Amino acid sequence: MRKAEDLARDEIRRLKPCVHGGEVWDVAVETGRSVGDFVDFSSSVNPLGPSPKAFDALRDGFGRLTFYPDSNSTALREAIACHYGSLDSRNVIVGNGSTELIYLFAEVFLKSGDVALVPSPSFGEYESAVRKAGGEPKFVPLDSGFQVEAEAFKREIRDAKVVYLCNPNNPTGMLIKHNSLLEIVEAALEEEVLVFLDEDFIEFVDDEKEQSLISKLGRFPNLFILRTFTKFYGLTGLRVGFGLADTGIIDILSRVKMPWSVNSLGQAAAAAALSDEAHNAKTHTVIKAERKFLLSELAKLKGFRVYPADANYFFLDIRRSGFSAAQLRERMLKLGVLVRDCSSFQGLDGFYLRVAVRMREENERLLAAFREVLSSV
Amino acid sequence: MRKAEDLARDEIRRLKPCVHGGEVWDVAVETGRSVGDFVDFSSSVNPLGPSPKAFDALRDGFGRLTFYPDSNSTALREAIACHYGSLDSRNVIVGNGSTELIYLFAEVFLKSGDVALVPSPSFGEYESAVRKAGGEPKFVPLDSGFQVEAEAFKREIRDAKVVYLCNPNNPTGMLIKHNSLLEIVEAALEEEVLVFLDEDFIEFVDDEKEQSLISKLGRFPNLFILRTFTKFYGLTGLRVGFGLADTGIIDILSRVKMPWSVNSLGQAAAAAALSDEAHNAKTHTVIKAERKFLLSELAKLKGFRVYPADANYFFLDIRRSGFSAAQLRERMLKLGVLVRDCSSFQGLDGFYLRVAVRMREENERLLAAFREVLSSV
Repeated sequence: MRKAEDLARDEIRRLKPCVHGGEVWDVAVETGRSVGDFVDFSSSVNPLGPSPKAFDALRDGFGRLTFYPDSNSTALREAIACHYGSLDSRNVIVGNGSTELIYLFAEVFLKSGDVALVPSPSFGEYESAVRKAGGEPKFVPLDSGFQVEAEAFKREIRDAKVVYLCNPNNPTGMLIKHNSLLEIVEAALEEEVLVFLDEDFIEFVDDEKEQSLISKLGRFPNLFILRTFTKFYGLTGLRVGFGLADTGIIDILSRVKMPWSVNSLGQAAAAAALSDEAHNAKTHTVIKAERKFLLSELAKLKGFRVYPADANYFFLDIRRSGFSAAQLRERMLKLGVLVRDCSSFQGLDGFYLRVAVRMREENERLLAAFREVLSSV
Repeated sequence: MRKAEDLARDEIRRLKPCVHGGEVWDVAVETGRSVGDFVDFSSSVNPLGPSPKAFDALRDGFGRLTFYPDSNSTALREAIACHYGSLDSRNVIVGNGSTELIYLFAEVFLKSGDVALVPSPSFGEYESAVRKAGGEPKFVPLDSGFQVEAEAFKREIRDAKVVYLCNPNNPTGMLIKHNSLLEIVEAALEEEVLVFLDEDFIEFVDDEKEQSLISKLGRFPNLFILRTFTKFYGLTGLRVGFGLADTGIIDILSRVKMPWSVNSLGQAAAAAALSDEAHNAKTHTVIKAERKFLLSELAKLKGFRVYPADANYFFLDIRRSGFSAAQLRERMLKLGVLVRDCSSFQGLDGFYLRVAVRMREENERLLAAFREVLSSV
């Protein structure tokens, strides 16, 4: 019998495992400690946690566990469409986290040899999904200030099948300039190129409604917008994401999506979380205040360059601190603070960190740990 | 702009949506009633529901919702390995329901044009997964008594890449004869053909340990065994399945599986459910008694041919009842009882039904509804 790996498709054998944030479980195994022993700044999630209404919905769902989940997520899709006003539930697809939709989109639209434009650096799953589908990622570097350059994308767009964009971008945390974003999507439309726009962090942005392209969906039948309940809504463990697009895109994705992929507790909790205006307003208030606090405090740290943060995390260039990102992460971990070493992001070297915005007390613990490590040089 | 469908891969455009059991949500939408208004005999799930320990684990998991799930399901894989004794956690992969593993396996091992042997009739997702991967399902009919014929599979095995088997088979409910099963897996091994053996219902079988091939995994590096928490453990809505195989198969599947696909509440509830020996023993007792009761009562119904049931559902040939399966389903639905019309299964015509084994009171409601409808001819 040959090795099982030798029986796999060529595209599959070539794949390398991807490195992710949110690695508390691995860290706990490595260090022999429990996940509660760390403050996790490596994944950027609402520090208030989920809405109390989401917990009510979970308890309420206990009685229906022996039912299959609604494979079409009908109630949640209607809640989402209603929340965003201008949409119909036929413009919505729900996935097992936004991750399922990243992989599904690539699987449906990319075949072997198709080119996909991917910003560099950006979220690593776009590249993984493109490669898994057999496509070729073509990396388009951000400019020296880590901004998306419309011209750089437009130059390559004609040869592409899909353009990936992340707004605000992960891990750099800055919004794409609105005009640049529109220019890229328009150029893509002219060339019949699809745009996969990841807005997973956009609820944390102060002017979300103006920055999001949801209101422009009617103009762009080539545009797919990705959203999630993992970040702002804090339902990270439950895996619920969604996509918004013209019915043409949603129909073909829905037809091909595997059945029952979104668990029923997640569907119920997500719909409840969406409706909790008080909790969501409180989240905005906390993030805004703590982002401001962290910005001014992080900027005081020796050898740190702090990029402006539009979302709920900071991107740090620590080149002049005397530490590499890997070293700093390791030292911080010993103090019970987990930060994201960004060296696994395509296009970044080993001197960038990402840290989430959390509650004041936790943010102070982060700052104290940084100070302690930095003063040890 | 072309239609989005025209931008999709050829294999994808050719796919037709699959029809599934567990369709309470669709039925509720169609009829304008709530899911609680029906007794659902269309999906075959433990009628006792999940273990109380699973509910404790769910509540306990509420405090960790803002963490990503453990992408490797380490604790659950260890619990599974331990439960089956002879296995190591490196022989286990956990999926978002067994459905994710059905699709993942096909995606990894089948490329365009590869042939997969699929029993007919059997669970429809094998065909869907094969086609989505671009492979060609070659249907191998069961014999006239709906038994798997080893010779029929062995004749075709040399040209195949994968053989799918379901034991007990869905929707026919009977075990594959143990010698036939071993013959097929051995013939496959000789030809370096992979076997995907779905044992999703095998916990309901009286002599599970003798019938399952788990104890034979060491002999068969070409064998992948599928299991689930959806059926026997009643965690249907939470989507947790798993696969057992030689580390060669598990390694390549794990490397390619999308991250975070199994929600954290599901992982915790599944591990707890596995350990609840009392609840699991009670399930065996109930299913055994009710299966016996239903067998004798269903056999009394006019025009029904009842096949022997090894699992927790009955396969019925209703050809001589005066109704088609669609008609009977429709009439039963009006009485609040949902049964599975099997005409969407490849290889079956419109005269087969599948009904789950449930609690005595519910089974009596099923029988009363059948009697009422049949007496109306």
